[in-house]
Amino acid sequence: MPRWKPGAVDRLQAAALELFDEQGFERTTVAEIVQRAGLTQRTFFNHFSDKREVLFGLSSELQQEIIGEIAAGDEALPPLDVVMRALEAVADKMFEHRRAVVRHRYAVIAANPELLERELGKHAALTEAIAAALRARGGDPEAAYLAASVAMLAQQVAFRAWTRPGETRALRDLLPEALSSLRATLGHDPEAPPLPA
Amino acid sequence: MPRWKPGAVDRLQAAALELFDEQGFERTTVAEIVQRAGLTQRTFFNHFSDKREVLFGLSSELQQEIIGEIAAGDEALPPLDVVMRALEAVADKMFEHRRAVVRHRYAVIAANPELLERELGKHAALTEAIAAALRARGGDPEAAYLAASVAMLAQQVAFRAWTRPGETRALRDLLPEALSSLRATLGHDPEAPPLPA
Repeated sequence: MPRWKPGAVDRLQAAALELFDEQGFERTTVAEIVQRAGLTQRTFFNHFSDKREVLFGLSSELQQEIIGEIAAGDEALPPLDVVMRALEAVADKMFEHRRAVVRHRYAVIAANPELLERELGKHAALTEAIAAALRARGGDPEAAYLAASVAMLAQQVAFRAWTRPGETRALRDLLPEALSSLRATLGHDPEAPPLPA
Repeated sequence: MPRWKPGAVDRLQAAALELFDEQGFERTTVAEIVQRAGLTQRTFFNHFSDKREVLFGLSSELQQEIIGEIAAGDEALPPLDVVMRALEAVADKMFEHRRAVVRHRYAVIAANPELLERELGKHAALTEAIAAALRARGGDPEAAYLAASVAMLAQQVAFRAWTRPGETRALRDLLPEALSSLRATLGHDPEAPPLPA
Protein backbone atom coordinates (compact mmCIF):
# COMPACT_ATOMS: atom_id res chain seq x y z
CA MET A 1 0.00 0.00 0.00
CA PRO A 2 1.39 3.45 -0.91
CA ARG A 3 1.71 6.03 1.84
CA TRP A 4 -1.23 8.41 2.05
CA LYS A 5 -0.42 11.79 0.43
CA PRO A 6 -3.50 14.00 0.56
CA GLY A 7 -1.83 16.85 -1.30
CA ALA A 8 -0.79 14.74 -4.25
CA VAL A 9 -4.14 12.96 -4.56
CA ASP A 10 -6.06 16.23 -4.45
CA ARG A 11 -3.76 17.91 -6.97
CA LEU A 12 -3.93 14.96 -9.39
CA GLN A 13 -7.72 14.83 -9.12
CA ALA A 14 -8.05 18.59 -9.67
CA ALA A 15 -5.77 18.45 -12.73
CA ALA A 16 -7.65 15.43 -14.13
CA LEU A 17 -11.02 17.15 -13.65
CA GLU A 18 -9.84 20.26 -15.49
CA LEU A 19 -8.47 18.23 -18.38
CA PHE A 20 -11.49 15.88 -18.66
CA ASP A 21 -13.66 18.99 -18.83
CA GLU A 22 -11.49 20.74 -21.41
CA GLN A 23 -10.82 17.85 -23.79
CA GLY A 24 -12.77 14.79 -22.59
CA PHE A 25 -11.81 11.69 -20.62
CA GLU A 26 -10.71 9.61 -23.63
CA ARG A 27 -8.38 12.20 -25.09
CA THR A 28 -6.57 13.00 -21.83
CA THR A 29 -3.33 11.19 -21.01
CA VAL A 30 -1.74 10.48 -17.64
CA ALA A 31 1.30 12.48 -18.84
CA GLU A 32 -0.91 15.56 -19.26
CA ILE A 33 -2.46 15.08 -15.83
CA VAL A 34 0.87 14.88 -13.99
CA GLN A 35 2.24 17.84 -15.95
CA ARG A 36 -0.79 19.95 -14.99
CA ALA A 37 -0.44 18.85 -11.36
CA GLY A 38 3.33 19.50 -11.28
CA LEU A 39 4.00 15.89 -10.23
CA THR A 40 5.59 12.78 -11.75
CA GLN A 41 4.07 9.72 -13.40
CA ARG A 42 5.66 7.69 -10.61
CA THR A 43 3.60 9.57 -8.03
CA PHE A 44 0.47 9.05 -10.15
CA PHE A 45 0.97 5.28 -10.31
CA ASN A 46 1.82 5.14 -6.61
CA HIS A 47 -1.76 6.22 -6.03
CA PHE A 48 -3.80 4.99 -9.00
CA SER A 49 -3.76 1.80 -11.07
CA ASP A 50 -5.07 3.59 -14.18
CA LYS A 51 -6.48 6.85 -15.56
CA ARG A 52 -10.06 6.07 -14.61
CA GLU A 53 -9.14 5.57 -10.94
CA VAL A 54 -7.86 9.16 -10.53
CA LEU A 55 -11.40 10.33 -9.78
CA PHE A 56 -11.85 7.61 -7.14
CA GLY A 57 -8.73 8.32 -5.10
CA LEU A 58 -10.68 8.82 -1.89
CA SER A 59 -12.92 5.77 -2.18
CA SER A 60 -10.79 3.39 -0.13
CA GLU A 61 -10.14 6.01 2.59
CA LEU A 62 -13.86 6.82 2.59
CA GLN A 63 -14.72 3.16 3.05
CA GLN A 64 -12.19 2.75 5.88
CA GLU A 65 -13.49 5.83 7.68
CA ILE A 66 -17.13 4.71 7.45
CA ILE A 67 -16.32 1.14 8.53
CA GLY A 68 -14.28 2.50 11.46
CA GLU A 69 -17.15 4.71 12.60
CA ILE A 70 -19.60 1.80 12.37
CA ALA A 71 -17.30 -0.51 14.35
CA ALA A 72 -17.02 2.17 17.07
CA GLY A 73 -20.74 3.02 17.00
CA ASP A 74 -23.15 2.78 19.92
CA GLU A 75 -24.17 -0.87 20.31
CA ALA A 76 -27.64 0.06 21.51
CA LEU A 77 -28.58 1.88 18.29
CA PRO A 78 -30.52 0.26 15.42
CA PRO A 79 -28.31 -0.53 12.39
CA LEU A 80 -29.65 2.31 10.21
CA ASP A 81 -28.88 4.90 12.93
CA VAL A 82 -25.35 3.53 13.33
CA VAL A 83 -24.70 3.93 9.58
CA MET A 84 -26.27 7.39 9.39
CA ARG A 85 -24.11 8.65 12.29
CA ALA A 86 -21.06 7.24 10.52
CA LEU A 87 -22.02 9.01 7.29
CA GLU A 88 -22.59 12.29 9.16
CA ALA A 89 -19.17 12.09 10.84
CA VAL A 90 -17.48 11.33 7.53
CA ALA A 91 -19.39 14.15 5.80
CA ASP A 92 -17.70 16.67 8.09
CA LYS A 93 -14.30 15.04 7.92
CA MET A 94 -14.00 14.28 4.20
CA PHE A 95 -16.53 16.28 2.20
CA GLU A 96 -17.67 19.53 3.75
CA HIS A 97 -14.52 21.54 2.88
CA ARG A 98 -14.40 20.38 -0.75
CA ARG A 99 -17.91 21.00 -2.07
CA ALA A 100 -16.72 22.73 -5.26
CA VAL A 101 -14.42 19.85 -6.22
CA VAL A 102 -17.07 17.20 -5.44
CA ARG A 103 -19.64 19.13 -7.52
CA HIS A 104 -17.22 19.35 -10.44
CA ARG A 105 -16.36 15.66 -10.09
CA TYR A 106 -20.07 14.68 -10.22
CA ALA A 107 -20.61 16.71 -13.37
CA VAL A 108 -17.64 15.08 -15.13
CA ILE A 109 -18.70 11.58 -14.07
CA ALA A 110 -22.30 12.12 -15.17
CA ALA A 111 -21.06 13.18 -18.62
CA ASN A 112 -19.02 9.99 -19.13
CA PRO A 113 -20.73 6.55 -19.07
CA GLU A 114 -17.41 4.77 -18.46
CA LEU A 115 -16.79 6.83 -15.32
CA LEU A 116 -20.43 6.55 -14.24
CA GLU A 117 -20.31 2.75 -14.35
CA ARG A 118 -17.15 2.81 -12.22
CA GLU A 119 -18.80 5.19 -9.74
CA LEU A 120 -21.82 2.88 -9.46
CA GLY A 121 -19.50 -0.09 -8.91
CA LYS A 122 -17.72 1.74 -6.05
CA HIS A 123 -21.11 2.65 -4.58
CA ALA A 124 -22.22 -1.01 -4.64
CA ALA A 125 -18.93 -2.15 -3.09
CA LEU A 126 -19.27 0.41 -0.29
CA THR A 127 -22.86 -0.74 0.37
CA GLU A 128 -21.62 -4.32 0.69
CA ALA A 129 -18.76 -3.24 3.01
CA ILE A 130 -21.21 -1.37 5.25
CA ALA A 131 -23.49 -4.43 5.43
CA ALA A 132 -20.46 -6.57 6.34
CA ALA A 133 -19.47 -4.10 9.09
CA LEU A 134 -23.00 -4.31 10.54
CA ARG A 135 -22.91 -8.12 10.43
CA ALA A 136 -19.54 -8.02 12.22
CA ARG A 137 -21.31 -6.23 15.10
CA GLY A 138 -23.56 -9.29 15.37
CA GLY A 139 -26.48 -7.93 13.38
CA ASP A 140 -29.01 -9.97 11.42
CA PRO A 141 -27.72 -10.33 7.80
CA GLU A 142 -30.95 -9.25 6.11
CA ALA A 143 -31.36 -6.25 8.44
CA ALA A 144 -27.72 -5.33 7.75
CA TYR A 145 -28.28 -5.46 3.98
CA LEU A 146 -31.45 -3.36 4.23
CA ALA A 147 -29.89 -0.75 6.55
CA ALA A 148 -26.81 -0.43 4.33
CA SER A 149 -28.95 -0.06 1.18
CA VAL A 150 -31.31 2.52 2.69
CA ALA A 151 -28.43 4.54 4.17
CA MET A 152 -26.60 4.61 0.83
CA LEU A 153 -29.76 5.76 -0.94
CA ALA A 154 -30.14 8.51 1.68
CA GLN A 155 -26.53 9.50 1.06
CA GLN A 156 -27.19 9.68 -2.68
CA VAL A 157 -30.26 11.87 -2.13
CA ALA A 158 -28.29 14.12 0.26
CA PHE A 159 -25.30 14.41 -2.10
CA ARG A 160 -27.61 15.35 -4.95
CA ALA A 161 -28.98 18.23 -2.86
CA TRP A 162 -25.58 19.24 -1.44
CA THR A 163 -24.00 19.57 -4.91
CA ARG A 164 -26.91 21.56 -6.37
CA PRO A 165 -25.92 25.09 -7.46
CA GLY A 166 -26.66 27.61 -4.71
CA GLU A 167 -27.12 25.02 -1.94
CA THR A 168 -25.29 26.16 1.21
CA ARG A 169 -26.52 23.78 3.93
CA ALA A 170 -23.97 21.28 5.28
CA LEU A 171 -24.01 17.67 4.03
CA ARG A 172 -24.34 16.54 7.68
CA ASP A 173 -27.67 18.37 7.90
CA LEU A 174 -28.92 17.16 4.53
CA LEU A 175 -28.47 13.49 5.52
CA PRO A 176 -31.31 13.30 8.11
CA GLU A 177 -33.43 15.41 5.76
CA ALA A 178 -32.87 12.83 3.00
CA LEU A 179 -33.97 10.09 5.40
CA SER A 180 -37.16 12.04 6.15
CA SER A 181 -37.81 12.41 2.41
CA LEU A 182 -37.47 8.65 1.97
CA ARG A 183 -39.87 8.06 4.88
CA ALA A 184 -42.38 10.48 3.35
CA THR A 185 -42.04 8.77 -0.05
CA LEU A 186 -42.68 5.34 1.46
CA GLY A 187 -45.63 6.70 3.40
CA HIS A 188 -47.77 4.74 5.77
CA ASP A 189 -47.95 0.94 5.52
CA PRO A 190 -51.43 0.23 4.05
CA GLU A 191 -51.48 -3.10 5.93
CA ALA A 192 -50.68 -1.53 9.30
CA PRO A 193 -53.65 -0.88 11.63
CA PRO A 194 -55.16 2.63 11.25
CA LEU A 195 -54.07 5.31 13.70
CA PRO A 196 -56.49 5.84 16.61
CA ALA A 197 -58.90 8.72 15.95
CA MET B 1 -34.26 -1.02 -34.91
CA PRO B 2 -34.11 -4.80 -35.48
CA ARG B 3 -37.33 -6.78 -35.32
CA TRP B 4 -38.03 -8.32 -31.94
CA LYS B 5 -37.20 -12.06 -31.91
CA PRO B 6 -37.82 -13.42 -28.41
CA GLY B 7 -36.65 -16.93 -29.31
CA ALA B 8 -33.29 -15.79 -30.65
CA VAL B 9 -32.59 -13.43 -27.75
CA ASP B 10 -33.41 -16.11 -25.17
CA ARG B 11 -31.31 -18.74 -26.96
CA LEU B 12 -28.33 -16.41 -27.32
CA GLN B 13 -28.54 -15.41 -23.67
CA ALA B 14 -28.82 -19.04 -22.51
CA ALA B 15 -25.81 -20.06 -24.64
CA ALA B 16 -23.76 -17.09 -23.39
CA LEU B 17 -24.59 -17.87 -19.75
CA GLU B 18 -23.49 -21.49 -20.15
CA LEU B 19 -20.23 -20.48 -21.82
CA PHE B 20 -19.43 -17.63 -19.36
CA ASP B 21 -19.93 -20.17 -16.56
CA GLU B 22 -17.79 -22.86 -18.20
CA GLN B 23 -14.85 -20.75 -19.38
CA GLY B 24 -15.34 -17.16 -18.18
CA PHE B 25 -16.60 -14.00 -19.84
CA GLU B 26 -13.22 -12.89 -21.24
CA ARG B 27 -12.39 -16.21 -22.91
CA THR B 28 -15.76 -16.64 -24.63
CA THR B 29 -16.17 -15.44 -28.23
CA VAL B 30 -19.32 -14.38 -30.07
CA ALA B 31 -18.61 -17.20 -32.56
CA GLU B 32 -18.85 -19.74 -29.75
CA ILE B 33 -22.08 -18.22 -28.44
CA VAL B 34 -23.85 -18.35 -31.83
CA GLN B 35 -22.60 -21.89 -32.46
CA ARG B 36 -23.96 -23.06 -29.09
CA ALA B 37 -27.28 -21.30 -29.82
CA GLY B 38 -27.53 -22.70 -33.36
CA LEU B 39 -27.76 -19.19 -34.82
CA THR B 40 -25.62 -16.89 -36.96
CA GLN B 41 -23.34 -13.98 -36.06
CA ARG B 42 -25.62 -11.82 -38.17
CA THR B 43 -28.54 -12.59 -35.86
CA PHE B 44 -26.32 -11.89 -32.84
CA PHE B 45 -25.34 -8.44 -34.09
CA ASN B 46 -28.94 -7.70 -35.12
CA HIS B 47 -29.73 -7.82 -31.42
CA PHE B 48 -26.53 -6.84 -29.57
CA SER B 49 -23.82 -4.25 -30.19
CA ASP B 50 -21.18 -6.34 -28.40
CA LYS B 51 -20.53 -9.45 -26.30
CA ARG B 52 -21.28 -7.72 -22.99
CA GLU B 53 -24.74 -6.66 -24.15
CA VAL B 54 -25.92 -10.27 -24.66
CA LEU B 55 -26.89 -10.47 -20.97
CA PHE B 56 -28.86 -7.21 -21.24
CA GLY B 57 -31.04 -8.15 -24.20
CA LEU B 58 -34.26 -7.51 -22.32
CA SER B 59 -33.31 -4.18 -20.75
CA SER B 60 -34.81 -1.93 -23.42
CA GLU B 61 -38.02 -4.01 -23.62
CA LEU B 62 -38.18 -3.97 -19.80
CA GLN B 63 -37.86 -0.19 -19.77
CA GLN B 64 -40.54 0.25 -22.44
CA GLU B 65 -42.95 -2.02 -20.59
CA ILE B 66 -42.45 -0.22 -17.26
CA ILE B 67 -42.76 3.24 -18.84
CA GLY B 68 -45.91 2.12 -20.68
CA GLU B 69 -47.49 0.89 -17.44
CA ILE B 70 -46.61 4.15 -15.66
CA ALA B 71 -48.08 6.27 -18.47
CA ALA B 72 -51.30 4.23 -18.29
CA GLY B 73 -51.39 4.21 -14.47
CA ASP B 74 -54.19 5.57 -12.30
CA GLU B 75 -53.78 9.36 -12.09
CA ALA B 76 -55.12 9.46 -8.54
CA LEU B 77 -52.37 7.24 -7.12
CA PRO B 78 -49.21 8.60 -5.45
CA PRO B 79 -46.09 8.23 -7.65
CA LEU B 80 -44.57 5.35 -5.65
CA ASP B 81 -47.77 3.29 -5.97
CA VAL B 82 -47.88 3.92 -9.72
CA VAL B 83 -44.33 2.62 -10.12
CA MET B 84 -44.88 -0.39 -7.83
CA ARG B 85 -47.98 -1.43 -9.80
CA ALA B 86 -45.99 -1.12 -13.01
CA LEU B 87 -43.19 -3.29 -11.57
CA GLU B 88 -45.72 -5.90 -10.40
CA ALA B 89 -47.35 -6.09 -13.85
CA VAL B 90 -43.96 -6.44 -15.53
CA ALA B 91 -42.87 -9.07 -12.98
CA ASP B 92 -45.67 -11.35 -14.20
CA LYS B 93 -45.17 -10.56 -17.86
CA MET B 94 -41.38 -10.69 -18.17
CA PHE B 95 -39.85 -12.49 -15.20
CA GLU B 96 -42.06 -15.02 -13.46
CA HIS B 97 -41.67 -17.78 -16.07
CA ARG B 98 -37.88 -17.48 -16.29
CA ARG B 99 -36.70 -17.59 -12.68
CA ALA B 100 -33.97 -20.18 -13.35
CA VAL B 101 -32.43 -18.13 -16.16
CA VAL B 102 -32.59 -14.89 -14.16
CA ARG B 103 -30.96 -16.60 -11.16
CA HIS B 104 -28.19 -17.95 -13.38
CA ARG B 105 -27.72 -14.54 -15.00
CA TYR B 106 -27.36 -12.84 -11.59
CA ALA B 107 -24.72 -15.33 -10.48
CA VAL B 108 -22.66 -14.80 -13.65
CA ILE B 109 -22.94 -11.01 -13.41
CA ALA B 110 -21.95 -10.98 -9.73
CA ALA B 111 -18.81 -12.98 -10.59
CA ASN B 112 -17.64 -10.50 -13.23
CA PRO B 113 -16.95 -6.84 -12.29
CA GLU B 114 -17.18 -5.72 -15.94
CA LEU B 115 -20.70 -7.16 -16.23
CA LEU B 116 -21.68 -5.88 -12.77
CA GLU B 117 -20.74 -2.30 -13.69
CA ARG B 118 -22.85 -2.57 -16.85
CA GLU B 119 -25.77 -3.97 -14.83
CA LEU B 120 -25.53 -1.06 -12.39
CA GLY B 121 -25.43 1.39 -15.29
CA LYS B 122 -28.63 -0.13 -16.76
CA HIS B 123 -30.25 0.05 -13.33
CA ALA B 124 -29.39 3.76 -13.01
CA ALA B 125 -30.67 4.49 -16.53
CA LEU B 126 -33.96 2.71 -15.75
CA THR B 127 -34.34 4.71 -12.52
CA GLU B 128 -33.87 7.92 -14.52
CA ALA B 129 -36.39 6.77 -17.18
CA ILE B 130 -38.98 5.99 -14.47
CA ALA B 131 -38.47 9.44 -12.90
CA ALA B 132 -38.92 11.02 -16.35
CA ALA B 133 -42.15 9.05 -16.91
CA LEU B 134 -43.49 10.31 -13.57
CA ARG B 135 -42.57 13.89 -14.45
CA ALA B 136 -44.35 13.45 -17.79
CA ARG B 137 -47.54 12.74 -15.81
CA GLY B 138 -47.14 16.19 -14.28
CA GLY B 139 -45.47 15.10 -11.06
CA ASP B 140 -43.10 17.18 -8.93
CA PRO B 141 -39.50 16.47 -10.12
CA GLU B 142 -38.07 15.79 -6.66
CA ALA B 143 -40.98 13.51 -5.73
CA ALA B 144 -40.52 11.69 -9.05
CA TYR B 145 -36.81 11.14 -8.38
CA LEU B 146 -37.50 9.87 -4.84
CA ALA B 147 -40.33 7.54 -5.91
CA ALA B 148 -38.25 6.09 -8.76
CA SER B 149 -35.24 5.55 -6.47
CA VAL B 150 -37.26 3.91 -3.67
CA ALA B 151 -39.16 1.68 -6.12
CA MET B 152 -35.92 0.52 -7.76
CA LEU B 153 -34.42 -0.27 -4.35
CA ALA B 154 -37.57 -2.26 -3.51
CA GLN B 155 -37.20 -4.11 -6.80
CA GLN B 156 -33.59 -4.93 -5.97
CA VAL B 157 -34.59 -6.26 -2.53
CA ALA B 158 -37.42 -8.32 -4.07
CA PHE B 159 -35.19 -9.73 -6.85
CA ARG B 160 -32.60 -10.74 -4.27
CA ALA B 161 -35.25 -12.75 -2.41
CA TRP B 162 -36.88 -14.13 -5.57
CA THR B 163 -33.57 -15.52 -6.92
CA ARG B 164 -32.58 -17.10 -3.59
CA PRO B 165 -32.28 -20.92 -3.77
CA GLY B 166 -35.50 -22.58 -2.61
CA GLU B 167 -37.64 -19.42 -2.84
CA THR B 168 -40.98 -20.24 -4.50
CA ARG B 169 -43.12 -17.11 -3.93
CA ALA B 170 -43.89 -14.99 -7.00
CA LEU B 171 -41.88 -11.81 -7.66
CA ARG B 172 -45.19 -9.89 -7.74
CA ASP B 173 -45.80 -10.87 -4.10
CA LEU B 174 -42.24 -10.15 -3.00
CA LEU B 175 -42.41 -6.55 -4.25
CA PRO B 176 -44.87 -5.21 -1.63
CA GLU B 177 -43.03 -7.26 0.98
CA ALA B 178 -39.79 -5.51 0.01
CA LEU B 179 -41.52 -2.16 0.41
CA SER B 180 -42.66 -3.17 3.91
CA SER B 181 -39.08 -4.18 4.78
CA LEU B 182 -37.86 -0.76 3.67
CA ARG B 183 -40.54 0.93 5.77
CA ALA B 184 -39.56 -1.15 8.79
CA THR B 185 -35.87 -0.32 8.23
CA LEU B 186 -36.60 3.42 8.08
CA GLY B 187 -38.81 3.16 11.16
CA HIS B 188 -40.68 6.01 12.71
CA ASP B 189 -39.60 9.60 12.11
CA PRO B 190 -38.00 10.72 15.41
CA GLU B 191 -39.10 14.31 14.66
CA ALA B 192 -42.74 13.38 14.03
CA PRO B 193 -45.16 13.93 16.92
CA PRO B 194 -45.60 10.83 19.13
CA LEU B 195 -48.59 8.58 18.51
CA PRO B 196 -51.55 9.23 20.83
CA ALA B 197 -51.53 6.86 23.81
